[in-house]
Amino acid sequence: MIDKLIEKIIEKGNPTVAGLDPKLDYLPEDMIKNSFDKYGETFEGAADALFSFNKELIDALYDIVPAVKPQSAYYEMYGIEGIKCLSKTIDYAKSKGMYVILDAKRGDIGATSEAYAKAYLGTTELGGRSEAAFDPDSMTVNPYLGTDGVKPFADQCVLSGKSIFVLVKTSNKSSGELQDLICGGKPIYEHMASLVKQWGIDSIGSHGYSEVGAVVGATYPEQAAALRALMPHTYFLVPGYGAQGGKAEDVAKSFNGDGLGAVVNASRSIMCAYRKNGGGVGEAARAEAVRMRDDIMFAVKK
Amino acid sequence: MIDKLIEKIIEKGNPTVAGLDPKLDYLPEDMIKNSFDKYGETFEGAADALFSFNKELIDALYDIVPAVKPQSAYYEMYGIEGIKCLSKTIDYAKSKGMYVILDAKRGDIGATSEAYAKAYLGTTELGGRSEAAFDPDSMTVNPYLGTDGVKPFADQCVLSGKSIFVLVKTSNKSSGELQDLICGGKPIYEHMASLVKQWGIDSIGSHGYSEVGAVVGATYPEQAAALRALMPHTYFLVPGYGAQGGKAEDVAKSFNGDGLGAVVNASRSIMCAYRKNGGGVGEAARAEAVRMRDDIMFAVKK
Repeated sequence: MIDKLIEKIIEKGNPTVAGLDPKLDYLPEDMIKNSFDKYGETFEGAADALFSFNKELIDALYDIVPAVKPQSAYYEMYGIEGIKCLSKTIDYAKSKGMYVILDAKRGDIGATSEAYAKAYLGTTELGGRSEAAFDPDSMTVNPYLGTDGVKPFADQCVLSGKSIFVLVKTSNKSSGELQDLICGGKPIYEHMASLVKQWGIDSIGSHGYSEVGAVVGATYPEQAAALRALMPHTYFLVPGYGAQGGKAEDVAKSFNGDGLGAVVNASRSIMCAYRKNGGGVGEAARAEAVRMRDDIMFAVKK
Repeated sequence: MIDKLIEKIIEKGNPTVAGLDPKLDYLPEDMIKNSFDKYGETFEGAADALFSFNKELIDALYDIVPAVKPQSAYYEMYGIEGIKCLSKTIDYAKSKGMYVILDAKRGDIGATSEAYAKAYLGTTELGGRSEAAFDPDSMTVNPYLGTDGVKPFADQCVLSGKSIFVLVKTSNKSSGELQDLICGGKPIYEHMASLVKQWGIDSIGSHGYSEVGAVVGATYPEQAAALRALMPHTYFLVPGYGAQGGKAEDVAKSFNGDGLGAVVNASRSIMCAYRKNGGGVGEAARAEAVRMRDDIMFAVKK
């Protein structure tokens, strides 16, 4: 439930999410060596190192950061062992009380989106019983296929008490090639905003926000401001702060007057803080998470 | 390489691909029972049954059908064990000489698309060595994020001798909500077609087709005809024949004058042919695959 995320944000006074996109390149050398010594230079060895890294980050952040966002690609590239590590990471972060948003950007024709929704937001039937394949609290969804492709996720959210964030205006440089095209006097991302509102209209929770959120990049503050006005009941997942160039005052445009409405992601700047600022992985990540929280809260309150 | 697919299509005189989207519901009861007896009503049991089903289909089809298209969602919903089954299915189909198109519709910001491209089209570095996480010949890609999100896949195709199919006009009912919007006098799917052409321009193979193909649904024959004219060097992956309502004469619009240019997918009608026509899973699938081949070849040659 989006309410669950909002309550953690309020409790911690921190509207941010730590991205867990742990390429092997980001890890300290001794952490990699330790795992490769145990399991060889294998996917198993890599996955062991990735989990150690994630665990250190989660242990250092869980009492001050409300949520984590593992990016599925960085686990899939390590094969079955990588995906096992993703599943363990999701479960571990939840056990520490964090809200877990799986960044997987799935989306397909209706029947297939239903299968994805079962995989990540629901359960799968296994003869006389059913079980969750993966169990994050939320996931990201790609809307290229329209209502058929998104509704199964939105419906599953209501059944399971989970949430989704649908791509509207992404943070990357070329996002405008499709998303900024003007149709009938308004850009595609505004057309998508109307659809996202519609998909979420029946699942507005007690804080006034829907289970169907939107991804809105920090790197396009003007578009974010327009979208904020168009979608008052939609929570925004905001990537692009920090390493990608988004600043606190840019990010602030994605918030509502209630001080809510957005959760801002940073990945590299937190994961790799130890490289820039020294100290251990966890210690440096925590200091950077505090800095980021204060930077954003200051801009939001202005 | 798209050439590899084209050569298999020519050799077998069959421009079709069998979708492997094996929900447990589609399997014969005794096949499910057999696996659940061995492993219990678990993901392991389900995955064992799914692989038996896939193996029977591949064994019955490999000498007459050039390619298979496993849909990732139907494996992800069975968790780690399901994804192991996907990996085994990819490897088994390749060992029988089939071209494997993984239908995963990935797509993200540049750095993340690079990770996905490594996961499915390239290899992952593991200390001093590297290894393929998953090894299909081709995959589907979602272009909502524009060039940043697709180029890493296109570049990896050139490095690894693989191919991709980028969503342009999908087969589902609501595909028009975004894809048919008119911008600057032409629909979004034509804008995407221009981008797909551009992404593939440097990788045209010896049969005149690029490593960057397009997904164009059989359910929209007029749009397919327009796209065929716009993209002469782009191979089309055509879903929507059979169960979704596309007919052979609709599908024929996606072919070029050379009798090439498209590979037509059917999933349920082949996988579940045994339910409609009786006989074993493999036997019925083979008969349906022959019927489909003849139906489409007749329409293409007209």
